[in-house]
Amino acid sequence: MSLFKKILSNSRSDEDGIFFTEIQKILGFKPNSIDIYKKAFTHRSFNKLDAKGNPISYERLEFLGDAMLSAVIAGHLFNEVPHGDEGYLTKMRSKVVSREHLNELGRDLNLIRFVSSNVPTKHFGDNIHGNIFEALIGAIFLDKGYTYCEKFINKRVIIPYVDIAKLEGKVISYKSMVIEWCQKEKKSFHFDIYDDNGIDGQRFFGVKLMIDSKIIAKSRATSKKKAEEIAAKRAYYALQEKMIIKH
Amino acid sequence: MSLFKKILSNSRSDEDGIFFTEIQKILGFKPNSIDIYKKAFTHRSFNKLDAKGNPISYERLEFLGDAMLSAVIAGHLFNEVPHGDEGYLTKMRSKVVSREHLNELGRDLNLIRFVSSNVPTKHFGDNIHGNIFEALIGAIFLDKGYTYCEKFINKRVIIPYVDIAKLEGKVISYKSMVIEWCQKEKKSFHFDIYDDNGIDGQRFFGVKLMIDSKIIAKSRATSKKKAEEIAAKRAYYALQEKMIIKH
Repeated sequence: MSLFKKILSNSRSDEDGIFFTEIQKILGFKPNSIDIYKKAFTHRSFNKLDAKGNPISYERLEFLGDAMLSAVIAGHLFNEVPHGDEGYLTKMRSKVVSREHLNELGRDLNLIRFVSSNVPTKHFGDNIHGNIFEALIGAIFLDKGYTYCEKFINKRVIIPYVDIAKLEGKVISYKSMVIEWCQKEKKSFHFDIYDDNGIDGQRFFGVKLMIDSKIIAKSRATSKKKAEEIAAKRAYYALQEKMIIKH
Repeated sequence: MSLFKKILSNSRSDEDGIFFTEIQKILGFKPNSIDIYKKAFTHRSFNKLDAKGNPISYERLEFLGDAMLSAVIAGHLFNEVPHGDEGYLTKMRSKVVSREHLNELGRDLNLIRFVSSNVPTKHFGDNIHGNIFEALIGAIFLDKGYTYCEKFINKRVIIPYVDIAKLEGKVISYKSMVIEWCQKEKKSFHFDIYDDNGIDGQRFFGVKLMIDSKIIAKSRATSKKKAEEIAAKRAYYALQEKMIIKH
């Protein structure tokens, strides 16, 4: 092997190694076939073909992932909301899998950094974030099957984002509920916000919510507003458990 | 226990036993919880409530089954049609899971015989057949998980009904293709049709397709037309394998 080829091949496998490590962090498990995940981040402009001459891009995986996401969210809502009829469940699901929501999920994981494309990624519209998020779910299904899709969606969608009370519009903002309660109970409160960046260069914010100078809840997210809301939600449930706030 | 209560309880468990046997035949495996399947056939007019006071009907299971069916068909088409892009896959799936098609699937299995309802089932519209077929898939998911859903859908939807060439409109009728070929090759053909009823009282038709007085394919279905088409499709592939018909 020529030195040049060797360098190329080494740099290629280094790149693969970094991709493998980063994707494993996002997935929360070890992938079997890294090639399937690479496909989930290949834009059609990259003009790659498979052995049979079919174009490689994330679009087919996006179709598959969309179907798996819908199925997993359907299963979750079915179990979580035993009083909800078919129409209610359909409405709730469409809120969870809305384009806007999927874009947010993809953006929060900064998935766009993995995209192989011959067009600068900044030229893509907003939907690229949600599309590759769905393609990633499709790749998980192909690589590991339905149960791993469920685990991943539970970790990355359901736990952080699926809040029945909010989806039903019963709670608009946990932050304002906590503030209202503090004012009514004559307690002091303070959201302590600080930079808490990740190693991948993405900006993160940390929040400590103090009530009467005691830390009640902490959080970390990609925007100050989101981090405050997560901390407030945690505080709300913590205070509720202690029977201080009543439903 | 009074004799009357005992008779009631026995007749009830006999009924359960028949339901269990029949449903097992349709599923192709032994269910864990028969109650889940009963729910799949309970119409809202039956006014049944669960222990928590939530109404019991097949409608929630229909929502779940619809999602699982879409996911399984997506997975099948993804693997079967490697050249199909996202738009193509979406179009093909919507043909497979069309209301009309689902109604046909439910009707062929005569699922309506299991429905508990306070309204005579003949008063329901056509969609009841497809709805309870989807509810049955939802019940399978709850009872046994995704893999069993896949197995059932493979047996009851994909193998008998998902024909890519037909969905693409490349083949309109296997019967006419076989007849055309026989005429061109100067071979005699005959569709031998006979009654072949099931023990559940449903009418079935058997077909033997003879070419030059030799049985080439057999089939059984709920209509003469369907049975002829299935036999013709089998003959088509059998003849193709022998290199007699060329694509």
